[in-house]
Amino acid sequence: MHNIAQIGIGRMGALHLRNVVANPRLKLTWIVDPAPEAANAARQYQAKITTSLDEALADPNVKGVVVASPTAFHLEHVLACLKAGKAVFCEKPLDLDLGRLKAAEKELSKPAAPLFVAFNRRFDPHFRKLKRHIVDGTIGALETINIINHDPAAPPAHFIGTSGGLFKDFTIHDFDMAAWLMPDPLTEIFAWTSCLVDPAIAEAGDVDTARLLLRDAKGRMCMISNTRRSGCGYDQRIQAFGSKGMASANAVPQDATEIWQEHGALRAPLHPGFIGRYAEAYRAELDHFADILDGKAKPETSYDASIQSLALAEAAARSVTLNAPVKL
Amino acid sequence: MHNIAQIGIGRMGALHLRNVVANPRLKLTWIVDPAPEAANAARQYQAKITTSLDEALADPNVKGVVVASPTAFHLEHVLACLKAGKAVFCEKPLDLDLGRLKAAEKELSKPAAPLFVAFNRRFDPHFRKLKRHIVDGTIGALETINIINHDPAAPPAHFIGTSGGLFKDFTIHDFDMAAWLMPDPLTEIFAWTSCLVDPAIAEAGDVDTARLLLRDAKGRMCMISNTRRSGCGYDQRIQAFGSKGMASANAVPQDATEIWQEHGALRAPLHPGFIGRYAEAYRAELDHFADILDGKAKPETSYDASIQSLALAEAAARSVTLNAPVKL
Amino acid sequence: MHNIAQIGIGRMGALHLRNVVANPRLKLTWIVDPAPEAANAARQYQAKITTSLDEALADPNVKGVVVASPTAFHLEHVLACLKAGKAVFCEKPLDLDLGRLKAAEKELSKPAAPLFVAFNRRFDPHFRKLKRHIVDGTIGALETINIINHDPAAPPAHFIGTSGGLFKDFTIHDFDMAAWLMPDPLTEIFAWTSCLVDPAIAEAGDVDTARLLLRDAKGRMCMISNTRRSGCGYDQRIQAFGSKGMASANAVPQDATEIWQEHGALRAPLHPGFIGRYAEAYRAELDHFADILDGKAKPETSYDASIQSLALAEAAARSVTLNAPVKL
Amino acid sequence: MHNIAQIGIGRMGALHLRNVVANPRLKLTWIVDPAPEAANAARQYQAKITTSLDEALADPNVKGVVVASPTAFHLEHVLACLKAGKAVFCEKPLDLDLGRLKAAEKELSKPAAPLFVAFNRRFDPHFRKLKRHIVDGTIGALETINIINHDPAAPPAHFIGTSGGLFKDFTIHDFDMAAWLMPDPLTEIFAWTSCLVDPAIAEAGDVDTARLLLRDAKGRMCMISNTRRSGCGYDQRIQAFGSKGMASANAVPQDATEIWQEHGALRAPLHPGFIGRYAEAYRAELDHFADILDGKAKPETSYDASIQSLALAEAAARSVTLNAPVKL
Repeated sequence: MHNIAQIGIGRMGALHLRNVVANPRLKLTWIVDPAPEAANAARQYQAKITTSLDEALADPNVKGVVVASPTAFHLEHVLACLKAGKAVFCEKPLDLDLGRLKAAEKELSKPAAPLFVAFNRRFDPHFRKLKRHIVDGTIGALETINIINHDPAAPPAHFIGTSGGLFKDFTIHDFDMAAWLMPDPLTEIFAWTSCLVDPAIAEAGDVDTARLLLRDAKGRMCMISNTRRSGCGYDQRIQAFGSKGMASANAVPQDATEIWQEHGALRAPLHPGFIGRYAEAYRAELDHFADILDGKAKPETSYDASIQSLALAEAAARSVTLNAPVKL
Repeated sequence: MHNIAQIGIGRMGALHLRNVVANPRLKLTWIVDPAPEAANAARQYQAKITTSLDEALADPNVKGVVVASPTAFHLEHVLACLKAGKAVFCEKPLDLDLGRLKAAEKELSKPAAPLFVAFNRRFDPHFRKLKRHIVDGTIGALETINIINHDPAAPPAHFIGTSGGLFKDFTIHDFDMAAWLMPDPLTEIFAWTSCLVDPAIAEAGDVDTARLLLRDAKGRMCMISNTRRSGCGYDQRIQAFGSKGMASANAVPQDATEIWQEHGALRAPLHPGFIGRYAEAYRAELDHFADILDGKAKPETSYDASIQSLALAEAAARSVTLNAPVKL
Repeated sequence: MHNIAQIGIGRMGALHLRNVVANPRLKLTWIVDPAPEAANAARQYQAKITTSLDEALADPNVKGVVVASPTAFHLEHVLACLKAGKAVFCEKPLDLDLGRLKAAEKELSKPAAPLFVAFNRRFDPHFRKLKRHIVDGTIGALETINIINHDPAAPPAHFIGTSGGLFKDFTIHDFDMAAWLMPDPLTEIFAWTSCLVDPAIAEAGDVDTARLLLRDAKGRMCMISNTRRSGCGYDQRIQAFGSKGMASANAVPQDATEIWQEHGALRAPLHPGFIGRYAEAYRAELDHFADILDGKAKPETSYDASIQSLALAEAAARSVTLNAPVKL
Repeated sequence: MHNIAQIGIGRMGALHLRNVVANPRLKLTWIVDPAPEAANAARQYQAKITTSLDEALADPNVKGVVVASPTAFHLEHVLACLKAGKAVFCEKPLDLDLGRLKAAEKELSKPAAPLFVAFNRRFDPHFRKLKRHIVDGTIGALETINIINHDPAAPPAHFIGTSGGLFKDFTIHDFDMAAWLMPDPLTEIFAWTSCLVDPAIAEAGDVDTARLLLRDAKGRMCMISNTRRSGCGYDQRIQAFGSKGMASANAVPQDATEIWQEHGALRAPLHPGFIGRYAEAYRAELDHFADILDGKAKPETSYDASIQSLALAEAAARSVTLNAPVKL
């Protein structure tokens, strides 16, 4: 069992905390967070608590750190942990600013300790199976991909201001999926956006609806469909079209029940949000972190994936500004 | 094109009439029916009209007769047509009384002209495909079958009195399916019934809900599930279980649309009744009749199938009375 | 019953011929076609045959003409029929050249007799139901649409030369669907294409794969996904996303059977082509034509729809050439 | 956190052990098992190990015991734990012999400490949702139920000898489901069985295929369909039919992917066995045990449910022997 310190137990932090505690290969040792809930959690799980990251990092028994602080602190905390020689688990994004990331390229791309920047969908069993179907040639040669990423309901407008905007906050997952599933580097991007869901989002300077196209040098294409509010739960789907058919990861209902009545046959609703939809993915991320701590695996996603998806987000924004395709 | 006389244009008759007219190999020549609508139909389709079956049968150009009179007249009309040397199409049942049928065995089992007693489900493309999966060994050796036959809504109680009762009027289709799909003769039957839908049905001396079991000498089994009122449209399903998996003919929705909302994903409702659900089957029956008239085919179902399913219905009724299995 | 002359009984013509014969409100009177099969068909259906369109048009009993000649002759034949005062049924396209169509605007937009240019998908029950869900507000306010139109297998390259190219021959249906389903006029289009299916198509100067985006003045968007070869049958789907959920017309399997085995649960394959998939739509078109002949309906689609979809096809081609969005 | 001793870490025991360790409210303190793997597990999870149940029970810190010894020892171990005043979690069956259970009725029905006899399906989220649909009246008044319980592959024949036979080992779950879902006590049972899967099972004196009917005093009915080998994974389904429609818990595929090819659309296979299919149920059972230890809940299933399902199994066996329905 590897001793773990965790920074931050907000919404995402609480989720990771439960998974750390439930993972038989990890042992929660420190919680770094000033919130009163943190004290309760520390008591419940028999961990130590501190408001000083340095104190936790100074503990030689700590092998890995789960960085779950607010996004704005990710980079600072990650760098501190790496400097202390601790393996790092940090849910993406590492940072919202491409320039700041590149400024730390040296410490991040060849880190002093393993740096795992987790992209949850890469660990989702449905998308992993889809990837395997593509790689195995089940659908022949891959030609095009359609990604649907529709959030259940728009965040409050005040969140929008700090989110980094639709592309960096939301489409970022689709950029990572596109880059992961497409066999060659993407070479060009085109994007249209609208504000159809909530005028307050437009007032906050953002958009809530998008369609994007990406392509590679061989003419393969990928379409991304985004909305901040689906009206029908968390609609996450990817379809991959090849020379011998289609493979898809469909939207995931909450359970396998149905009700048949006169007006139709009603399947259970989709998961209402990412916490339920990606519950297995978040557990699998921590398993991967345990593998990394065991020395059995290298981080599947790290600085490179962060840079890559952020660069796509910035190119998409340029495409919107220019109303023209942008070369990558 | 074969000249056709049709007897009766009630609900089922009107359905067959449309199919006769739409079939490029059949030509409607006579309508035998006293109803005023019959005169309209005759005018519209440029057919002759009469109230005398003999008159139509005397027409040497008439090659086949569609018998769509009320059930109580089926046998009489069929025998008259056969005697006149006309090929006969008659939707099952030939008669509700096994004794009466057997009394006419000579004329019916070796008829003077082709006798096609149509069982609509045998011509349904879904069930035909299921049968092919069974025969082809797609699911290995067949072991058991589950048949669901649930009507959308109970008929008025006054109909119940003349219907022949649940087994002869309704389960009869399932008996025919069981006999058709099972590879060996059925040897034993067990049935339970209830009146759960409408007390007026009980008052009319009938039941509206049933579960039946059938088996053959090798221990293969078939379950039949019946209700007169599903509350969710016309629920017609068969599942066949074999040594290498399952093949099923699923319930058929009215169309391929869906609506996804917060409370779930709603598929289009099932067909509201047999006319929509079995539209293709009824057309296929008449195509089969055209094949028979062409001399290309022998009737797939005739006197034998009628006897067989009626005998199962009577055995089922005995099982209910005895509350015990009945050997066939 | 309305007397009908039909011009052409090639692949599409034979399909329409069967539907004319099966429609109880239409009576096939003339076949205009020099092919030997035409003589057989005329004999079978007791119609007259001629190689002279004028002869058929001179028959005062002929009320309507089904124009099913090769596309290159559509416009000439349609104009001749209209001049003779006959109602016209012509499967789209009226012509592949926008200039030629506009040159005949006077005769086509205010025709001397009803002109029905049939777009089959408008008569498909699945897409009509989808349209109703949109119009009825079932999914709230419509925001975006994703259209998938994937052909089962690419046509031979020699066909490509005369087809008008992917946009005019194939995407044309999607342009019509987009215009029909979107509540406001489309204002801008962007298109990317590739040749991924068959290099012979590229040699013939065409493409086989496309992704297109359209939008309207309010920021609603529509995505179109095209390939000439799906590898999985005729994949025709539309999803409409609104403020209260999604409505979709899903791909249509050939039947409702499934086979469950160790490696998965296999639904019946999609229809292998448009003839099966749109069988009901083609019948419904002719019903609509019968309504027009009855004076009960005006043509749902005529010159305007033809112009509109052709204009979108030409704009899409310009977008590809410029690699930029094009205003409509 | 409640200190837990666990007896037995075989196949089921290993599963429960992982869930105990992953449950943040439970702390594994003792493993009682002589196997070498037990020593490893104890080391890994920092628990103590013993071969003496008494030693573990003597530890006053132990609040609850997970009894996961072989079925033949369940009753003895459960009674010992209760005598020591420890709350007990024991996966069903408590025992295979109704007489032996009744002999211990006093200790078991009013136990000295909470006794939770876990029936996994009662804790399955799909079946719980189905139950809620029934209780809430979503499908109106419940009328009939169809239960499909098909195992992926038959156990080796040598297991059959100690299993208690199909009804006690396998159908027992369906008996419990029937009793749980039906609103009134069941009053009569009828059963047919066959040996179709493996002749070695017949040689071992058992059967592998069954169809059963149950009913209550109001005429509601329940059908159970069993096979030891489905050929298509672990096929677990329940359909409940009511006056206003049907509610079902469908078979659960391993994931939400599909592959569409020329021969059809292939959904991911069903779970290959109970461990995957009921993973959530087993976790939920332990959550319920934690609730019991917290004093927040009483055991949902205990001695009564064990007796009830065993009595149904014995009545079913009598029905087979008599080839007649048996009153309960």
